[in-house]
Amino acid sequence: MDKTGLVVSAHAADFVWRAGGAIALHAERGYRMTVVCLSYGERGESAKLWKNEGMTLEKVKVARKAEAEAAAEALGVADLVLFDIGDYPLNIDAAAIDRLVDVFRQVQPSFVLSHSLDDPYNTDHPAATRMTLDARMIAQAWGHKPGEKVLGAPQMYLFEPHQTEQCGWKPDTILDITDVWEKKRAAIECMEGQEHLWDYYTNVAENRGNQFRRNSGGQAGGRPARYAEGFQSIFPRTVDEL
Amino acid sequence: MDKTGLVVSAHAADFVWRAGGAIALHAERGYRMTVVCLSYGERGESAKLWKNEGMTLEKVKVARKAEAEAAAEALGVADLVLFDIGDYPLNIDAAAIDRLVDVFRQVQPSFVLSHSLDDPYNTDHPAATRMTLDARMIAQAWGHKPGEKVLGAPQMYLFEPHQTEQCGWKPDTILDITDVWEKKRAAIECMEGQEHLWDYYTNVAENRGNQFRRNSGGQAGGRPARYAEGFQSIFPRTVDEL
Amino acid sequence: MDKTGLVVSAHAADFVWRAGGAIALHAERGYRMTVVCLSYGERGESAKLWKNEGMTLEKVKVARKAEAEAAAEALGVADLVLFDIGDYPLNIDAAAIDRLVDVFRQVQPSFVLSHSLDDPYNTDHPAATRMTLDARMIAQAWGHKPGEKVLGAPQMYLFEPHQTEQCGWKPDTILDITDVWEKKRAAIECMEGQEHLWDYYTNVAENRGNQFRRNSGGQAGGRPARYAEGFQSIFPRTVDEL
Amino acid sequence: MDKTGLVVSAHAADFVWRAGGAIALHAERGYRMTVVCLSYGERGESAKLWKNEGMTLEKVKVARKAEAEAAAEALGVADLVLFDIGDYPLNIDAAAIDRLVDVFRQVQPSFVLSHSLDDPYNTDHPAATRMTLDARMIAQAWGHKPGEKVLGAPQMYLFEPHQTEQCGWKPDTILDITDVWEKKRAAIECMEGQEHLWDYYTNVAENRGNQFRRNSGGQAGGRPARYAEGFQSIFPRTVDEL
Amino acid sequence: MDKTGLVVSAHAADFVWRAGGAIALHAERGYRMTVVCLSYGERGESAKLWKNEGMTLEKVKVARKAEAEAAAEALGVADLVLFDIGDYPLNIDAAAIDRLVDVFRQVQPSFVLSHSLDDPYNTDHPAATRMTLDARMIAQAWGHKPGEKVLGAPQMYLFEPHQTEQCGWKPDTILDITDVWEKKRAAIECMEGQEHLWDYYTNVAENRGNQFRRNSGGQAGGRPARYAEGFQSIFPRTVDEL
Amino acid sequence: MDKTGLVVSAHAADFVWRAGGAIALHAERGYRMTVVCLSYGERGESAKLWKNEGMTLEKVKVARKAEAEAAAEALGVADLVLFDIGDYPLNIDAAAIDRLVDVFRQVQPSFVLSHSLDDPYNTDHPAATRMTLDARMIAQAWGHKPGEKVLGAPQMYLFEPHQTEQCGWKPDTILDITDVWEKKRAAIECMEGQEHLWDYYTNVAENRGNQFRRNSGGQAGGRPARYAEGFQSIFPRTVDEL
Repeated sequence: MDKTGLVVSAHAADFVWRAGGAIALHAERGYRMTVVCLSYGERGESAKLWKNEGMTLEKVKVARKAEAEAAAEALGVADLVLFDIGDYPLNIDAAAIDRLVDVFRQVQPSFVLSHSLDDPYNTDHPAATRMTLDARMIAQAWGHKPGEKVLGAPQMYLFEPHQTEQCGWKPDTILDITDVWEKKRAAIECMEGQEHLWDYYTNVAENRGNQFRRNSGGQAGGRPARYAEGFQSIFPRTVDEL
Repeated sequence: MDKTGLVVSAHAADFVWRAGGAIALHAERGYRMTVVCLSYGERGESAKLWKNEGMTLEKVKVARKAEAEAAAEALGVADLVLFDIGDYPLNIDAAAIDRLVDVFRQVQPSFVLSHSLDDPYNTDHPAATRMTLDARMIAQAWGHKPGEKVLGAPQMYLFEPHQTEQCGWKPDTILDITDVWEKKRAAIECMEGQEHLWDYYTNVAENRGNQFRRNSGGQAGGRPARYAEGFQSIFPRTVDEL
Repeated sequence: MDKTGLVVSAHAADFVWRAGGAIALHAERGYRMTVVCLSYGERGESAKLWKNEGMTLEKVKVARKAEAEAAAEALGVADLVLFDIGDYPLNIDAAAIDRLVDVFRQVQPSFVLSHSLDDPYNTDHPAATRMTLDARMIAQAWGHKPGEKVLGAPQMYLFEPHQTEQCGWKPDTILDITDVWEKKRAAIECMEGQEHLWDYYTNVAENRGNQFRRNSGGQAGGRPARYAEGFQSIFPRTVDEL
Repeated sequence: MDKTGLVVSAHAADFVWRAGGAIALHAERGYRMTVVCLSYGERGESAKLWKNEGMTLEKVKVARKAEAEAAAEALGVADLVLFDIGDYPLNIDAAAIDRLVDVFRQVQPSFVLSHSLDDPYNTDHPAATRMTLDARMIAQAWGHKPGEKVLGAPQMYLFEPHQTEQCGWKPDTILDITDVWEKKRAAIECMEGQEHLWDYYTNVAENRGNQFRRNSGGQAGGRPARYAEGFQSIFPRTVDEL
Repeated sequence: MDKTGLVVSAHAADFVWRAGGAIALHAERGYRMTVVCLSYGERGESAKLWKNEGMTLEKVKVARKAEAEAAAEALGVADLVLFDIGDYPLNIDAAAIDRLVDVFRQVQPSFVLSHSLDDPYNTDHPAATRMTLDARMIAQAWGHKPGEKVLGAPQMYLFEPHQTEQCGWKPDTILDITDVWEKKRAAIECMEGQEHLWDYYTNVAENRGNQFRRNSGGQAGGRPARYAEGFQSIFPRTVDEL
Repeated sequence: MDKTGLVVSAHAADFVWRAGGAIALHAERGYRMTVVCLSYGERGESAKLWKNEGMTLEKVKVARKAEAEAAAEALGVADLVLFDIGDYPLNIDAAAIDRLVDVFRQVQPSFVLSHSLDDPYNTDHPAATRMTLDARMIAQAWGHKPGEKVLGAPQMYLFEPHQTEQCGWKPDTILDITDVWEKKRAAIECMEGQEHLWDYYTNVAENRGNQFRRNSGGQAGGRPARYAEGFQSIFPRTVDEL
């Protein structure tokens, strides 16, 4: 049975900054990783492109799509699904939710990644998260498209927003991404329109690496991780050992 | 290198109701489990004994100690350490904290269990938790008793209080204790003075078992755990895989 | 003037597990109890039925309706109103809200019961609560269907969700349902499709009974309730005595 | 370059009770103040009018509009924009949001005022706030109506709800409105349909004045403000000096 | 059996501003009300007195004591107990707690009133609350001074702090004090050293009266209370009817 | 009248990492900055020194003191006050609080800086904050050392802890420290024992700089700050303009 993971990204670049390490790491470990981009971030997160003469919505989408595909390839994404439902705001309707339910059913992910529960700067982000929780619930319903394999109870992790404290985001899981850092940085550099964020998320990864070291033992035996990513879990873990 | 765990229990019976399954399970898995009882609960949690004619503090402590020892044996506790600092309120002073630091240093636990961060019914419980956090921090200090092996960064889990919602306790970890349930029930029955709680905590274990099933997959593949315990983590986990 | 109460249940069985005792108790005390089921839980909470060969949505709804009617009768519900707006997700539109406003106006309830404000497992539950708060507000508006009797300010109680701590639900009111426990258990047993929850909610009722005893005086005079239900209030109480 | 401010008020009177002092003060200081009233509060906040014989929705709206205009004039509002999208509930659709985005773009406010994030009594209030956050975000998007001047990052302040503690509202900014109190009181008295609230909000202003004195130094040098208004910020301030 | 109530006030005047109405009302209803003042507020809440020439700590205490006694008489307090443990900070030690335990045991209150759980302006206030929770717990212990009548489980209400939102205080109970308002105002006027607060707390009482009207039915039948006090409960209520 | 600021640092290095920019910036602007170090961090934050052969507590203190003095000089601190009350845990008693009250009275700061309200990794940090709030309150008391100039109501800012999200710290104020960054970096490099944190806090400063740009206008006019520090306010601001 395949190991699989699902990432739901509001805009084309979110999966790179916020979960690129997790994607690359699990891809290396044999997980088949599916990334859903609900939009290209074509209106709200493409300022640099829009400053060019003669830009149109279609041109921006083409450019952002190329970036997302390049980043996905750098990370080893198995399937990049582009919903193209528009951004600022996301146009989330019943059809879009249904489409995400189908992805859940097909992928049967071991875990799902999406945005923080709140974000006053960017209401698309929590909207994507709510949509993902709705879709997860519907995918578990035996009466939704009866006969299909229903979804189990995959953990849902919230990846890191831009300003964590303003979004009420508190990580409970720190993932060592040292081994795949080069891939994440390569994916980050595919995002040509947002060069002002490259170093920002490199700093984040380094500092989460420091926190990995500290929380795994610090100066009395912590593991020398250099880069990490943080995640907040929605559901309790079920375990056999503490 | 030995695997070890540490439990800090405000009163003699707390470790049984709240962490008996975790103790027995890890003992079976080869962990050397140390339980510190800060007090016998001799004043505040021995109502049944005090209703007897001619009861004295010493007699209550003797009776409660015998119960705690019997329960510890039933659970496979390797070391039961009785601080006897008094209860209602716990008399936590610098010497008591220092003694707990020593235990931390000697045990070098992989994980620590203690009470919820708040409890308006029983202020001894959060006081024990604060003391444990203090002791953990001091045990990590290279300048405290230099030359001793300093503590790493063990996870601290908060076990289940009596009325979870009133104590702001939210479990993020559910441990399957089905295999050791008989041992936990046996330990519970050692607590003769609190028979009114036997079924209460059996109900809790059954319902946490239901939650284990639900969170591990529900009707679409959840594991058939019958008994479980819930825990809240204080620190983020450091992991290699989600 | 009649005493009345209103329960808004997202799915057909919710009013039984979560408020069956409150319904039966108030019915016995002369309250005319109205229960609105927004859906039958036909898609999301009927797994056992769907595992049968040849099942259809209509058949599931018929079966669930029969269960809900039987449970309502066992509890002494005066009026069971089935909105049938679909589940997973609930299809809450302006017409559905308007219909609920009409119920509020007709019933003029002394109190309203609905779900917790949050539930990451089941987003239908908080959606029902938000709808109920919307409808309560509209029913209070003098300009909505002018001429009708407007609604006063009934307390809104949130009944117990499946995993209380994950839903941010904190009970501030514990209701003794010992006298009507047999009715609640009978209603529970009407829910043939969810037999795995019968004992779960019996355990909950017993443990809330223990908490009733404890909070009403404990070993120093608490009342010997054996079964209880917990509720969280939304609005402050207005009282003449503490 | 003009200094400007924007107020988004769910119902016709909200901007008066909750932000009348801020509006009048900034108008006096040369800010061009724009107030958007999403509705007249014609259904839900006009009880006194509806108790009159022969009242109709149109008559109520006419009366409420006249009150709002009089109050706006008393406060020195430069532009009163009446969206008339209906109340209880507000009918917030894509067109309404788009219209608010246009206002943001045209006004280019230095700061925005709206309602608290939560209000169980009145779900129109937080709905207006969410709409304002959505519109602020869209107005910042370079790809929304390209060529228009995009919005910067104005602070968003939440003005005071009726029952602050029930709405989770916590002021971090207290504004001295002593100099414009007469204007605010005059505007309040324009609200003939809600005379029961005149003294309520006068009391609020006096008590916030006391808090201004206390927080600016108290008996050891606090400024003798007599009237004030409180506000909660959404975003961090960016400063050159603490 | 007597009905009794207990109030624990950090400083001499707190019980007047924050619970004077509740005290007078319950006294009128036949409750024997005991008020414990932990200190006179002699250092921290007597600025006006200290501004006089030749003032000494003893003179301030004498003056404040006289005020407290006059206010207690105005309110119908049965027993005013002055602990005189010092203020800013309160000197809470084991002996002081023990003394409060004795009061709990003697009074056997139906309910207890004390301060909010947090107050960044005045750390004496939450210290008094923690001390009261400690004492309540110890008074319930069968092994504390065995033979005495142990305490049951009285509700603990938190009365209103000066700046409610900054103290995280949320009232869930509003008490109509219209009938005893004159007594509360008279008691307030006994506090000659804090005349700047007389109108502040009159405003508070009027506005809580408005909230009583609104929460008891508003324009559709709310009771015409003119003055009220708000309280936050610590423990769930145990009830027979919602 | 002098402008002054006060910083209360639990350990010798905290003021550097967490508030070095604010100190240097205000010193340049003519503020007289006082820094209180409650301890040298000699036991808990000097691991590197303790790994040396023959180290003693006195030697560590001497080394840490030298580092703190060098850093203070680099930042332009006017007065570095070393309380030397011990660390892990801080030994906070009445005498230490009294000493801090004296500092408050002498400095009469416009603002105070201290640690976050919570920190599960390091309980010395919130202990220092509580002590500071206690001392601020006592310094405001007219009856404490009557005749001295009492303290007004200075804002208290909480500076940034190591793992912000775990400490419940949410910045509401971002200070541009670009102009003094070189001084902060120089002070950081005085902390020879904690070289592993140099780049960590450089990353933090760069990322807060990004947040400054974003919150001051982003791509539509944000100020090009390169380095910043974040702070959380305890008290509301009193202002004349929003």
